[in-house]
Amino acid sequence: MTIVFGGMAASLDGYIRSVSGDLSWLNDAMSKAEDYGFAATEQRTGAYVMGANTYREVAGMGVGGSSVPTYVVTHDETLATPKNTLLFSGDLAVLVARLKASLPAEKDICVYGGGQLVTGFIDAGLLDELGVAVIPVILGGGVPFFGSIARWTRLELAECRPYPSGIVLLNYRLRLGAA
Amino acid sequence: MTIVFGGMAASLDGYIRSVSGDLSWLNDAMSKAEDYGFAATEQRTGAYVMGANTYREVAGMGVGGSSVPTYVVTHDETLATPKNTLLFSGDLAVLVARLKASLPAEKDICVYGGGQLVTGFIDAGLLDELGVAVIPVILGGGVPFFGSIARWTRLELAECRPYPSGIVLLNYRLRLGAA
Repeated sequence: MTIVFGGMAASLDGYIRSVSGDLSWLNDAMSKAEDYGFAATEQRTGAYVMGANTYREVAGMGVGGSSVPTYVVTHDETLATPKNTLLFSGDLAVLVARLKASLPAEKDICVYGGGQLVTGFIDAGLLDELGVAVIPVILGGGVPFFGSIARWTRLELAECRPYPSGIVLLNYRLRLGAA
Repeated sequence: MTIVFGGMAASLDGYIRSVSGDLSWLNDAMSKAEDYGFAATEQRTGAYVMGANTYREVAGMGVGGSSVPTYVVTHDETLATPKNTLLFSGDLAVLVARLKASLPAEKDICVYGGGQLVTGFIDAGLLDELGVAVIPVILGGGVPFFGSIARWTRLELAECRPYPSGIVLLNYRLRLGAA
């Protein structure tokens, strides 16, 4: 069955971006010898959903040309996108229902970021799985991954994978309605 | 050699206390069948350092009668404490140096909380080890463990222990001066 999953890499104190935007805290921590599951994530993804800021970053890195349908959640109707990338400004629940109905059962919906969008999915009870790569650094400040969420969400630990680099991958299933 | 360590239990989104103070998110997650290392922590501790709010909580729970010397970091000189508990309002580095010189090598200094005090120790480069019990819940708001810290602190993962309850214990050594 198609599910909705999100993921992020964050410092131990929960930041996904440093104050200056310098990414060396992340790049220095990651090791080319380690498999963080990027290929598996790409393989399972039938559609990406991302915020406009994230889209601009990803497009700037030349990642935009994927054949996987991508939905950019934004009110900016002037945002230029290639033809497999659609702008979306309505109710996220409607988008999720439509994608779940149209995707093959073995493909999932990836909420790619940023933190604000993933938090919005959690707040709306629309996220089924959340993966957090805990980077072994305390940044002390920056852009937090988690925003304010109205209610508690209990989690079920599905996977805990420490890497030699000190990165720890935590995968959770969200226990919707159970909190 | 005597080192300084701190620890906390926090939600995945980094809160150590819910908005209402309700502790069921923590109590419901913990299992009596699981050993979180409390006894080992007590065993290694030669001195506790805690903030005044934490002290009031701990004393209220009847924990105050420990034979281990306890230092309460506060400017409130009227705080009533038993005789093995001392008030401290000076430079934390001086306190740490004094304790390191006086404690036996096999005993460590436990910074017991709250988050503000532990953050202060990190910010001053005085914390050697940090343990985080990641509770499988997203609280969405409350009192965050980490405060603002001036510089990056790189961490070395010393231990990653997932429990059947879904709690994950992450123990880090702080790489002081390495960031």
